[in-house]
Amino acid sequence: MLGCGQVFKTMAENAQEVRELYVMDNIPNVDGIPSPLNFHRDFVAKNIPCIFTNCINAWPAIKKWSVDYLRHTIGNKLVSVAVTPNGYSDAIANNMFMLPHEVKMSVDEVLSHMCNLDTEHDAVYYIQKQNSNLLTEFPELVEDVAEHLAWATDTFGKHPDAVNFWMGNSAAVTSLHKDHYENLYCVIRGKKTFTLYPPTDRPYIPYKQYRVGKYTYNKSKWEVVGTDDSIPWIPVDPLKPDFGTYPQFKLAKPITCEIKPGEILYLPALWFHHVQQSDETIAVNYWYDMDFDMKFTYYQLMNNLATLLEGSSAEYSFDD
Amino acid sequence: MLGCGQVFKTMAENAQEVRELYVMDNIPNVDGIPSPLNFHRDFVAKNIPCIFTNCINAWPAIKKWSVDYLRHTIGNKLVSVAVTPNGYSDAIANNMFMLPHEVKMSVDEVLSHMCNLDTEHDAVYYIQKQNSNLLTEFPELVEDVAEHLAWATDTFGKHPDAVNFWMGNSAAVTSLHKDHYENLYCVIRGKKTFTLYPPTDRPYIPYKQYRVGKYTYNKSKWEVVGTDDSIPWIPVDPLKPDFGTYPQFKLAKPITCEIKPGEILYLPALWFHHVQQSDETIAVNYWYDMDFDMKFTYYQLMNNLATLLEGSSAEYSFDD
Repeated sequence: MLGCGQVFKTMAENAQEVRELYVMDNIPNVDGIPSPLNFHRDFVAKNIPCIFTNCINAWPAIKKWSVDYLRHTIGNKLVSVAVTPNGYSDAIANNMFMLPHEVKMSVDEVLSHMCNLDTEHDAVYYIQKQNSNLLTEFPELVEDVAEHLAWATDTFGKHPDAVNFWMGNSAAVTSLHKDHYENLYCVIRGKKTFTLYPPTDRPYIPYKQYRVGKYTYNKSKWEVVGTDDSIPWIPVDPLKPDFGTYPQFKLAKPITCEIKPGEILYLPALWFHHVQQSDETIAVNYWYDMDFDMKFTYYQLMNNLATLLEGSSAEYSFDD
Repeated sequence: MLGCGQVFKTMAENAQEVRELYVMDNIPNVDGIPSPLNFHRDFVAKNIPCIFTNCINAWPAIKKWSVDYLRHTIGNKLVSVAVTPNGYSDAIANNMFMLPHEVKMSVDEVLSHMCNLDTEHDAVYYIQKQNSNLLTEFPELVEDVAEHLAWATDTFGKHPDAVNFWMGNSAAVTSLHKDHYENLYCVIRGKKTFTLYPPTDRPYIPYKQYRVGKYTYNKSKWEVVGTDDSIPWIPVDPLKPDFGTYPQFKLAKPITCEIKPGEILYLPALWFHHVQQSDETIAVNYWYDMDFDMKFTYYQLMNNLATLLEGSSAEYSFDD
């Protein structure tokens, strides 16, 4: 028999070797539009993040997208908005994985909520519909940015699967998760703070199965409705981790970065990420389908081993 | 506690998933010189092999490198030759890892041994010195091929670390092993037969620690001398596997290919390979340093888990 500790130790040593060999503590900056070959060789193939500067400075959006401009251009438009009591959509609360209340409201109204920072609120409004909402709900804004990033499209050899528009204030937080997408996250206004962990930190990042719940908000009253679905999700919050219940999370080493207007974060597929933002933050992101190749099966191996360990009742030490 | 069987099964499922997702049973052909981006995206980043055709047809070597031409051009030259009693250099025999007897002999003499196929021999001669011997020992031949493959050099972003010249007949066989190099293997004459296994077949491919031995050949008499060194090596021969001792090797699924004159095999770093050749085979290969990135740490995780299993006395089933 093998001790669970031996398997955990082997995975921990692997996570450490990754940090020594190719995942650095600081995310490298790349100045200017990269050649697709360099982007692929230096970052995509290695599945490591970078920050691109001076690639989208010429986008009209960088100068134009003020609150006044948006009111003037698309103020009357009805758009999809996620509403939550606490700013967390798609996150754990009430021991459930909570979906936001979804409403259609005018951009004017969203902007009023977003800018009305000095009073108490019982609801947080966040435009974060990840169904290519830039192209479908905000076609008037596309010409101020781009339908795709040509150099990224060349790199990945395909067009983006989704182009999303994000707008909200600092109350809106995205809980720790990972996506099956290569992500190019472009900040237009405000600032996004990413807390990242590479896929090889999986042994430190627990998953639990949660019932899916949904918020409903009606006449200033919140309700929580359980559904028949369930989903595996990460139970720890990097901002206030419960080390008593999840001692292994102490070993996860966050890599943080701030993305400012005109900057792009390349957030590789399968990287765990938690996102905060400043007030009045607007961003656009490009999701390219990931290749289900080595980076995927490497993660699968770690995930399946971590799941075996999570399912074992054995006690073993998480000492560093 | 975890059963060894659970860990082995998890690794076996991973090897299977790799075969379903991105490692195909047949090695793809690529016609003509690829763009570095395509080569990197489609093969290097995925760590999968391919066969390039119509890339080196114009090399003078393809037409010129006959036995007569080599006798005429460099016949008197003394070069390094590996001599073994059985055709296996760097392979297991006498329960040791056997290094060849190394001699300097004229190219004329090597060619005579190579072409003298109808009589009994007590020694096999193979030019296989992997120290960039094309550039150091055969500078007269370089202009008939190339010092590097420009498109591969662009792809990897570096020049080759070694360029090797190989010449021998069908008695010379290369035992199953892997290299820490990206390999572009160009056949000039004859035919090479590669038996390949992806790195994720590691749980099926055993390693054992062997004492290093050395052949010496003097006055037609072979001797075997043990050294103080030892090395981990693969104890199974894909041509006559000992399934009784290594039942797990039944699960390794070989991928075979024949590389003919004018063709190039891209043999990715860390792929297990066993090589046979036809009589009078000449080849040139370009070794580019591998990147010690995801492909390396993925292998390390598998290797360390497999080593744990190999070190365990537990019995578990290798049934498919």
